[in-house]
Amino acid sequence: MTVRIGLIGAGGMGRAHVERITNELAGAQIVAVADINLDAAKAVAEPLGAKAYADGKELIADPEVDAVLVATFGKVHEESVIPAIEAGKYVLCEKPLATTAAGCEQIMAAEQKVGKKLVTVGFMRRFDQAYREMKELLEAGDLGYATLVHNRHRNPSVPEGYVSRMAIDDTAIHEIDTMRWLLGEEIVEARVDRPRFTSKRFEHLNDPIVVVMKTESGVLIDDEVNVNIQFGYSIECELVMEAGTARLGDQERIHVRDGHGDRNKICNSHIDRFHAAFNQEVQEWIRAVAKDEHTGADSWDGYAAAVVVDAAVASLEDPEGKPVKVEMIDKPGLYA
Amino acid sequence: MTVRIGLIGAGGMGRAHVERITNELAGAQIVAVADINLDAAKAVAEPLGAKAYADGKELIADPEVDAVLVATFGKVHEESVIPAIEAGKYVLCEKPLATTAAGCEQIMAAEQKVGKKLVTVGFMRRFDQAYREMKELLEAGDLGYATLVHNRHRNPSVPEGYVSRMAIDDTAIHEIDTMRWLLGEEIVEARVDRPRFTSKRFEHLNDPIVVVMKTESGVLIDDEVNVNIQFGYSIECELVMEAGTARLGDQERIHVRDGHGDRNKICNSHIDRFHAAFNQEVQEWIRAVAKDEHTGADSWDGYAAAVVVDAAVASLEDPEGKPVKVEMIDKPGLYA
Amino acid sequence: MTVRIGLIGAGGMGRAHVERITNELAGAQIVAVADINLDAAKAVAEPLGAKAYADGKELIADPEVDAVLVATFGKVHEESVIPAIEAGKYVLCEKPLATTAAGCEQIMAAEQKVGKKLVTVGFMRRFDQAYREMKELLEAGDLGYATLVHNRHRNPSVPEGYVSRMAIDDTAIHEIDTMRWLLGEEIVEARVDRPRFTSKRFEHLNDPIVVVMKTESGVLIDDEVNVNIQFGYSIECELVMEAGTARLGDQERIHVRDGHGDRNKICNSHIDRFHAAFNQEVQEWIRAVAKDEHTGADSWDGYAAAVVVDAAVASLEDPEGKPVKVEMIDKPGLYA
Amino acid sequence: MTVRIGLIGAGGMGRAHVERITNELAGAQIVAVADINLDAAKAVAEPLGAKAYADGKELIADPEVDAVLVATFGKVHEESVIPAIEAGKYVLCEKPLATTAAGCEQIMAAEQKVGKKLVTVGFMRRFDQAYREMKELLEAGDLGYATLVHNRHRNPSVPEGYVSRMAIDDTAIHEIDTMRWLLGEEIVEARVDRPRFTSKRFEHLNDPIVVVMKTESGVLIDDEVNVNIQFGYSIECELVMEAGTARLGDQERIHVRDGHGDRNKICNSHIDRFHAAFNQEVQEWIRAVAKDEHTGADSWDGYAAAVVVDAAVASLEDPEGKPVKVEMIDKPGLYA
Repeated sequence: MTVRIGLIGAGGMGRAHVERITNELAGAQIVAVADINLDAAKAVAEPLGAKAYADGKELIADPEVDAVLVATFGKVHEESVIPAIEAGKYVLCEKPLATTAAGCEQIMAAEQKVGKKLVTVGFMRRFDQAYREMKELLEAGDLGYATLVHNRHRNPSVPEGYVSRMAIDDTAIHEIDTMRWLLGEEIVEARVDRPRFTSKRFEHLNDPIVVVMKTESGVLIDDEVNVNIQFGYSIECELVMEAGTARLGDQERIHVRDGHGDRNKICNSHIDRFHAAFNQEVQEWIRAVAKDEHTGADSWDGYAAAVVVDAAVASLEDPEGKPVKVEMIDKPGLYA
Repeated sequence: MTVRIGLIGAGGMGRAHVERITNELAGAQIVAVADINLDAAKAVAEPLGAKAYADGKELIADPEVDAVLVATFGKVHEESVIPAIEAGKYVLCEKPLATTAAGCEQIMAAEQKVGKKLVTVGFMRRFDQAYREMKELLEAGDLGYATLVHNRHRNPSVPEGYVSRMAIDDTAIHEIDTMRWLLGEEIVEARVDRPRFTSKRFEHLNDPIVVVMKTESGVLIDDEVNVNIQFGYSIECELVMEAGTARLGDQERIHVRDGHGDRNKICNSHIDRFHAAFNQEVQEWIRAVAKDEHTGADSWDGYAAAVVVDAAVASLEDPEGKPVKVEMIDKPGLYA
Repeated sequence: MTVRIGLIGAGGMGRAHVERITNELAGAQIVAVADINLDAAKAVAEPLGAKAYADGKELIADPEVDAVLVATFGKVHEESVIPAIEAGKYVLCEKPLATTAAGCEQIMAAEQKVGKKLVTVGFMRRFDQAYREMKELLEAGDLGYATLVHNRHRNPSVPEGYVSRMAIDDTAIHEIDTMRWLLGEEIVEARVDRPRFTSKRFEHLNDPIVVVMKTESGVLIDDEVNVNIQFGYSIECELVMEAGTARLGDQERIHVRDGHGDRNKICNSHIDRFHAAFNQEVQEWIRAVAKDEHTGADSWDGYAAAVVVDAAVASLEDPEGKPVKVEMIDKPGLYA
Repeated sequence: MTVRIGLIGAGGMGRAHVERITNELAGAQIVAVADINLDAAKAVAEPLGAKAYADGKELIADPEVDAVLVATFGKVHEESVIPAIEAGKYVLCEKPLATTAAGCEQIMAAEQKVGKKLVTVGFMRRFDQAYREMKELLEAGDLGYATLVHNRHRNPSVPEGYVSRMAIDDTAIHEIDTMRWLLGEEIVEARVDRPRFTSKRFEHLNDPIVVVMKTESGVLIDDEVNVNIQFGYSIECELVMEAGTARLGDQERIHVRDGHGDRNKICNSHIDRFHAAFNQEVQEWIRAVAKDEHTGADSWDGYAAAVVVDAAVASLEDPEGKPVKVEMIDKPGLYA
């Protein structure tokens, strides 16, 4: 069975998904593309012989669309996700699920009405082989339980439009989800520390910052968000267990030895670093849809990330940077 | 366009290709499977809704087969490859192209009659991202030209049926092809050195050995073939240039720090190490076939590997281990 | 000129200094040993033909003693250091300079009376080649100024007598001094975070903890103190600058590739890790004394470490773990 | 007891030994310096209050000289070493012991007459901590016996006066001695392979070359001598055992992460790389002399290196580069 996918949002991320589904992955094809800019939709759809829509809801209603891929702006995710749920179609929604906790709750309400998990949130790091090996090692238990996790999220630079809260809701949100998944527990508190800021930033930006979080069992997580580090895109993670540690490698393929030393390359962007993880995510989603199953992060994961983001932003905006408790609703039975 | 592939040879390698084409790659499907053991062919074909044949030639003749994947024993490759060429169909033939130089010459003769390169030899390392980065670095030229290359081909162990010449025609053949491709020149001489043998081998086996080769421009290549090294499958390569070196990394994803030190894993088999390279090879072949183009190692490459193997085996069998010149026919224009 | 050294305190650390001065370093000899246990003093002194004293003050008064090495318990350092200053003799005092800020102030008062810096505090990491290269890199300025420093102080295990505040006044005190020296600024605030504790600790101990500090310019320092990590003695430090980072290597000499992976050894104790730094410290001190010069950490450094320890301990003992300001006297002109 | 050392040869190497004995090592002092250029001898001797001689034999005869350090040109080593032996004084002679096998035999004859091993040849790598760990690992036996050793001896560049045979008698001689010591067996055959030469060399020089050697038990040793590699002084060694390998690390102290990647420094010269090994060698020699004991490489080791050099040079000069057997005299009982 070939899964017939409709894409909503023909921007860069959407086109990258079209590219991988068409040329790198098995079992699916893009049959429809929607964008509020119809020309943009057509530009993607036509070479594939797919239909183009100006309205995502029409695409969702199209009976030839088996499943929906949402790659619009975060603020309008709900507009596509909720109708897709109501139509009983699986959705792969780019992160964040919604930009507010309330939005995530509405999505969960819609899913609960249907009585079925249909939404996968695009937290692709869960599909990265390195994080997966780290999780396997933790779960094997030979090195004991986790006590701390140290994260670094470093980008070469960010444009002027990147504002301080994006360090949390756009950047650290990846570590927030990944840590919940890795440790298998909820984050209960968040705090933001402010180091000396770099002169490489735009004046208005707090950069770097450190987001410090605690889980239910007490695991202490820190996440250095440092988005003007110049030298590359560097996602680092060290899991500290009772009797050992594990850290992500650089995924480097060759080592060069020359006048700069013995060295390996640091990649430049999340596309380089997570290309395989994106592919793995979409491939596993295609296979799951074909079997009428759910895979990956669900709506509760999207909600949990949103409320941790809210707590961290509150600490960021607090003049004293105090720790803020994470307030969550009870988890609906569907997500147990 | 979906490329319709017929597989000849339903053994382990063939089934691995079926798996990747069906579940991991875009643009192709398996429509027929042939094996002299018809039940084996059926076992693979039926779950896919593909046809089963006892005779590869019937599969080749099937008009619904666009392209042929040959994964039979090396000794019978020609039986499938030549008819496929005559039928004008693209062939991906597992290495070796043929087990004798004469066999390779017959294949080239068939291709020349058709006037078109149809055969891709399954030297998958050309599609490995690490070797590709090494080749790009060499070709960029910043570190000068190559002077030496040091290779290690280490396997955890080999079964009793693995005899001394297989260290060359089954194992070192990978480095032979990869070095020709990496350096862009022919190998003109080969010699086999015998170190102290390991006690972990079966008595009849020369292990380890070192294959030493020279290229047209004088680049000196050594290849330590060490197939009972116990600890893992370890493919190492260091390219020495005039002003720097590059070596393959371990492709490790995490580093663990525990009572054994700070360490990364060594993989266990060529399947672990080259899974992505095999996928890349077959994916690029599918795309090329769809565009009526050739990709990867061609029949000349298969022939060149065969004659270098012959020279190295002659040195291995020489009591004094003298260097042996590689004797080649002139390269037909088709492969220029 | 051979510097004639008197040792006060014939315990393990004292004997290690005797060993290095006698067998590994140039330019000095041990001429006297004092210990409240006179037999212990004699056991060290006699093989060297040195004198033995039960009272450190007599040793200090001995005109054949040019300089004094204090290796007694921290609580009684002042009893030796102040008389040595009054006698106008150079002192190398093991850390801490004194166990209270008040004690350090008295030592500074004695030095100010003499009008000369005579005291070197045994913070040996300042003499470690790796930390020195890190400091040179920072000061070279190519990668910009420091924004954060991440430290790990991991010990395989600690005995039952090791109590929670020792994680700060005995363990983290090394990072406190090293960070002040590396960054060239004072620490102005300290806070202690409590991760999930390891089950490998004695019940009474808070372990691991994270000491978080801030400097005058805002550099954020974290120090994971994790003293039952089982696997080895692991001193890690990552200095984050505006355009790059630097971290300590493992100082490993060989890499082994076997069934545990590709790996290097983690050392077991501070003696393994800092043997060369201890030697360098004492050798530089001997040379300085011979030239009537001061070297290494001075009494102000000892005092500054003490007041940062006090702030961190206050945060550790605060039920909410609030950050605590570091309160310092004005720096006397002698230490400018 | 302070060992009173007389230095013969006040060039760079001799002065480096004076520096270390005076300022970095315990238990010795330089009491006399001889050089055919008396002014050079005086320039070194006077600041130390040592005597100066124009004739090494007078220095050897000086009753205040306990032991002799020979750092003259290789060709005149015998002139100093033999009289020192005859005077019954320990000698530390820089490598090579003598430039001919015959010269080494004369030195051994002199020692046999005295009936005592007095000569230590300055093969300092035996004192390098990394090689020592490698040897310990081999001898521990957990990874089985050695089968191969791969060496790289890379220098940034060499001056025009460096001729082809120096790649063996001045450069590879270090690996020749180190391999004999590491493996505990004699080398029985040597061959020189010629890769493509680098354009960075002076025209007259064969560079790089590979010296291939075999030991009694059959261990195959290769040594890439590559003395214009531009990027640094890089001494690499990989010992291959039956069930694992060990290789020298870069002895790096910090890792930098910046626009050039994640990297560590390559050192620039043998002085950087082997400073600690030189110190360890001379310190152990001083301690041995004080106890009337021999340490380090002896005259037989110096002889064995000379005859392996002769075989390798013969292969280098053979137009076909054939392997050459190493011809040795029987080992005198003194060296058993």
